[in-house]
Amino acid sequence: MIAEHLRLSPGPVDLTALPTDATPGFDGGKSEGKEALEELGSELSDLQERLYAEGRSGGTRSVLLVLQGMDTSGKGGVVRHTVALVDPQGIEVTAFGPPTEEELAHDFLWRVRRALPAPGRIGVFDRSHYEDVLVAKVRGLVEADEVERRYDAINELEAELLAQGTPVLKCFLHISPDEQRERLLKRLDRPDKHWKFDPVDIDDRQLWPQYRAAYETALERTNTEVAPWYVVPADKKWYRNLAVGLLLRDTLVHLGPTWPDADVDVEAQRRRLLDEEPVR
Amino acid sequence: MIAEHLRLSPGPVDLTALPTDATPGFDGGKSEGKEALEELGSELSDLQERLYAEGRSGGTRSVLLVLQGMDTSGKGGVVRHTVALVDPQGIEVTAFGPPTEEELAHDFLWRVRRALPAPGRIGVFDRSHYEDVLVAKVRGLVEADEVERRYDAINELEAELLAQGTPVLKCFLHISPDEQRERLLKRLDRPDKHWKFDPVDIDDRQLWPQYRAAYETALERTNTEVAPWYVVPADKKWYRNLAVGLLLRDTLVHLGPTWPDADVDVEAQRRRLLDEEPVR
Repeated sequence: MIAEHLRLSPGPVDLTALPTDATPGFDGGKSEGKEALEELGSELSDLQERLYAEGRSGGTRSVLLVLQGMDTSGKGGVVRHTVALVDPQGIEVTAFGPPTEEELAHDFLWRVRRALPAPGRIGVFDRSHYEDVLVAKVRGLVEADEVERRYDAINELEAELLAQGTPVLKCFLHISPDEQRERLLKRLDRPDKHWKFDPVDIDDRQLWPQYRAAYETALERTNTEVAPWYVVPADKKWYRNLAVGLLLRDTLVHLGPTWPDADVDVEAQRRRLLDEEPVR
Repeated sequence: MIAEHLRLSPGPVDLTALPTDATPGFDGGKSEGKEALEELGSELSDLQERLYAEGRSGGTRSVLLVLQGMDTSGKGGVVRHTVALVDPQGIEVTAFGPPTEEELAHDFLWRVRRALPAPGRIGVFDRSHYEDVLVAKVRGLVEADEVERRYDAINELEAELLAQGTPVLKCFLHISPDEQRERLLKRLDRPDKHWKFDPVDIDDRQLWPQYRAAYETALERTNTEVAPWYVVPADKKWYRNLAVGLLLRDTLVHLGPTWPDADVDVEAQRRRLLDEEPVR
């Protein structure tokens, strides 16, 4: 189980001590990794369809995948390569940007609750409520005691979600500052990547130690038994995509959605079709 | 161009005269068709990403794919196999069921307007506003003059959308009654398909001639120059998936989204990265 390798241990967090370029729990290299992800596709797809079927038949369970990480860590890449393996009908992706005025007029969890996945769906948060204890803290947008309150509010929300049948799979995509630099330079080098470039990313990069510290505290404070954090080494894109896929697979397997029973008399319905007058 | 083969001619429509099991515009068989769809993936993906990039950079254009067809015609299958080829972040799928009480309290287009794609997105309607001139008519849920009003309202909406930069690609997935029977029987045979089975589908099947007539009128009345109908033979699933993919590709090519220009001084930003103090 890849979870054992990636699950964050309880207690204080030192991100500099956690690898960014390793491939824990997977022996092969890039080509084997890509192959493994492709093979994972049909399994993920099958599990997702069962969950969807359950949701269509009165079930209320769902899954929430939370993707966090520094700029360029690959949150969008995971959606594109891993989440894309399953039926788009069963997926609800929400990308959280800076809060709008309307959102700021509400509690920070207001927009999050509105984006929670419907029954049977896999919700994916590209950034999330964690931004409200990360960027909000680093940029001094809220007071320290409000940040403290938010850690607790997040833990309560995630516990509530699990109790209602929606496990929250939280992945921190962990890249090194050097890898980020390469990726930002690439965005500048390629005209088809310019649209992804935002000078604010370089401003934020200059606050790397502050962001790292904010992440370390946030990860520690919200690394609960019911919704633990997984720290995914993300310098290697193929491993990042595979690791999140495996974690998602295991989350779905643990949930164990099953095909709903037919709520009709199958034999009687079959007879209706077999005995019908010709339809033209 | 596959469009020439599938575009519905203006004037009265006779669905019995249009093939359900042909493969117009494609010479190969099933395996070539599946291969062609896979190859289409990267092209579709690239076009979708350009559209998305445009939307992220102030553009307002989007695309709306409308999927209609009798039960089991494969609306969901097109989402699963064709729409799934592009980044889920750029897709907004809406499945329209029977209207809720709240929806019924509004004009029939209210829920449709709320589901229109955001800038840069590809919206996909699995059923749509057309249900309101099909099932509503066949089941006598509204008066005849209201149905008449709705054809015009639909044409106005679709013209408005195109004028705003959102072409509407309308695909009628055309299956034969025999093929539907096979598919319904399969849903009954396989426990993993039971959740998809609804006895109402057999009730509706017994109204096949009425539905066909309702479709024929609706297709004729809404087959406009700005938003024509494409009738896709859908007895062969592989052809159906490929044909919608090709139509979507051509719609995107015609729209011609281009990579947005960088709105920053690329060289200056590059220097910021190259000259920075080491980040740890």
